[in-house]
Amino acid sequence: VKAVVVGAGSWGTGFARLLADRGHEVTLVCRDPAHAATIAETGRNPRAAGDVALDGIAADSRVPAGADLYALAVPSAAFSRVVARLPEGGPVLSLTKGLDPETGGRLSTLVRGRPVAVLSGPNMAEEVAAGLPSAAVVASEDDELSVELQHAINSTVFRVYVNSDLVGVELCAAAKNVIGLAAGGVDGLGAGDNAKAALITRGLAEMARLGEACGARPETFAGLAGMGDLIVTCWSRLGRNRRAGELIAQGSSPADAVAAIGHVVEGLTTAPVLRDLAGRLGIELPITEGVCRVLEGDDLGELAASLMGRRPRGE
Amino acid sequence: VKAVVVGAGSWGTGFARLLADRGHEVTLVCRDPAHAATIAETGRNPRAAGDVALDGIAADSRVPAGADLYALAVPSAAFSRVVARLPEGGPVLSLTKGLDPETGGRLSTLVRGRPVAVLSGPNMAEEVAAGLPSAAVVASEDDELSVELQHAINSTVFRVYVNSDLVGVELCAAAKNVIGLAAGGVDGLGAGDNAKAALITRGLAEMARLGEACGARPETFAGLAGMGDLIVTCWSRLGRNRRAGELIAQGSSPADAVAAIGHVVEGLTTAPVLRDLAGRLGIELPITEGVCRVLEGDDLGELAASLMGRRPRGE
Repeated sequence: VKAVVVGAGSWGTGFARLLADRGHEVTLVCRDPAHAATIAETGRNPRAAGDVALDGIAADSRVPAGADLYALAVPSAAFSRVVARLPEGGPVLSLTKGLDPETGGRLSTLVRGRPVAVLSGPNMAEEVAAGLPSAAVVASEDDELSVELQHAINSTVFRVYVNSDLVGVELCAAAKNVIGLAAGGVDGLGAGDNAKAALITRGLAEMARLGEACGARPETFAGLAGMGDLIVTCWSRLGRNRRAGELIAQGSSPADAVAAIGHVVEGLTTAPVLRDLAGRLGIELPITEGVCRVLEGDDLGELAASLMGRRPRGE
Repeated sequence: VKAVVVGAGSWGTGFARLLADRGHEVTLVCRDPAHAATIAETGRNPRAAGDVALDGIAADSRVPAGADLYALAVPSAAFSRVVARLPEGGPVLSLTKGLDPETGGRLSTLVRGRPVAVLSGPNMAEEVAAGLPSAAVVASEDDELSVELQHAINSTVFRVYVNSDLVGVELCAAAKNVIGLAAGGVDGLGAGDNAKAALITRGLAEMARLGEACGARPETFAGLAGMGDLIVTCWSRLGRNRRAGELIAQGSSPADAVAAIGHVVEGLTTAPVLRDLAGRLGIELPITEGVCRVLEGDDLGELAASLMGRRPRGE
């Protein structure tokens, strides 16, 4: 397979490595020509994933036409622009975890006139790049495409399962980053692991409620793209959204948190988009709502205290 | 309420503190008269929870009769013996997370002739004792008892929700310790957070399959007693089962791991009991089966490698 990976962040870079290890012909595309030249010359991507050897992988600042697969690992805010400029060629595989900030739509719906699939799961890029084992799901409305991609990507270290619930997988991927911010907030407050586990449990229930309202399948939320990705996002020290929530709870502004992390923090983009979506759907997402309020300047300590003071009831 | 807590391990001690903080009259019972005397004299329980101030809590080595509530926080292997010798008095609340090793039965079924409820959730004893916030569920076939207990125990730091699925709550509490051993194994192998998240996700699916076969409600497995307790068990540094699995993966014998931890590790008792139960029910619990094999001496590294080499399929 001739594959193009657009977006040379840590996950795009790691995914390019996975594809090349499976014997595919891979081009990694980044916006900046100087960055592409560095990757091509040195076989390394010092900006996002300096440890990953990129030998055998081409680098370019323009997206080559005619490839068999276009994997997009760009920020959600750039997804629609990148898709609009994609040259002729094979299917699109979205690796991006978010929603379109303009419309609140699922990212796969921005892809027109060619088949599209998404890949998601508990896949911290740094671990995948280090050759540690991971599992993911691929989802598409086109079942044949899912199976083709499964066979093209699956390896002994990166296990790929097919999930036919595209809507659920995309909603999980977007919403888990917002719950990750909240879980980081629990860490930042020093509230402990019990509190964090309770928050994550309610967070998954909130994600499943959103999914139900959008026609997703409940099992997806209990699977790798749902619970699996959520818990690694909320618990791994590597999680950017978790870390951003922790910094914000300790007094950083969201902008300072992003600057300290040095990478895109998707949950910050996704939280207000999800709140709007919930409003349109007429459902309540209390954790997402709390995250939005804290991002707007509300005091996290007061919010947490008010939650603990509520009257007890059924689970 | 006049309450007796039987079992002065870390959770019995922490729970006695919670009840006393709610204004109840509490007696903490431990097997060893000398230990009871130490607790009574010093107001501390140095063996299990030295940091917890036990002022206002009585200590005894015999179980006093006529209390309004008997909370049992004893090892699962001792539960049936303790229940058989309970004096006359009020309902039993089980805090023990396991199954009866003799029969494989749920612990609440060992209680005869008086109302019984269970309490479970992501409640690492050390954090509860430190006054950090937690949430739990109380479950019983007697809904009135559940609500009474909810109101007697709930506080601003310890949130209690009612769950009417007694079977599901007890199965979750038992099975999560076995998954915790496996998650510790992932840590011990250094396989990373992605792999651990995938294992925990499959672990919850396995727990839910067991629950379904026993007539439990699926929602319970997605709630505090299921997913909530599972993730804290598998991820907190404080988790004994996780720690035991880590030590065993690094070469310790199970007995050495228990000795190093210095407390009961319930998953070691529960794993073979669950395997037998699965056999009687005709269901497969592959993670539990793997844990049993490793405890019997199989090589964990080989087991993990064979899992990663299987043919890919649907999720």
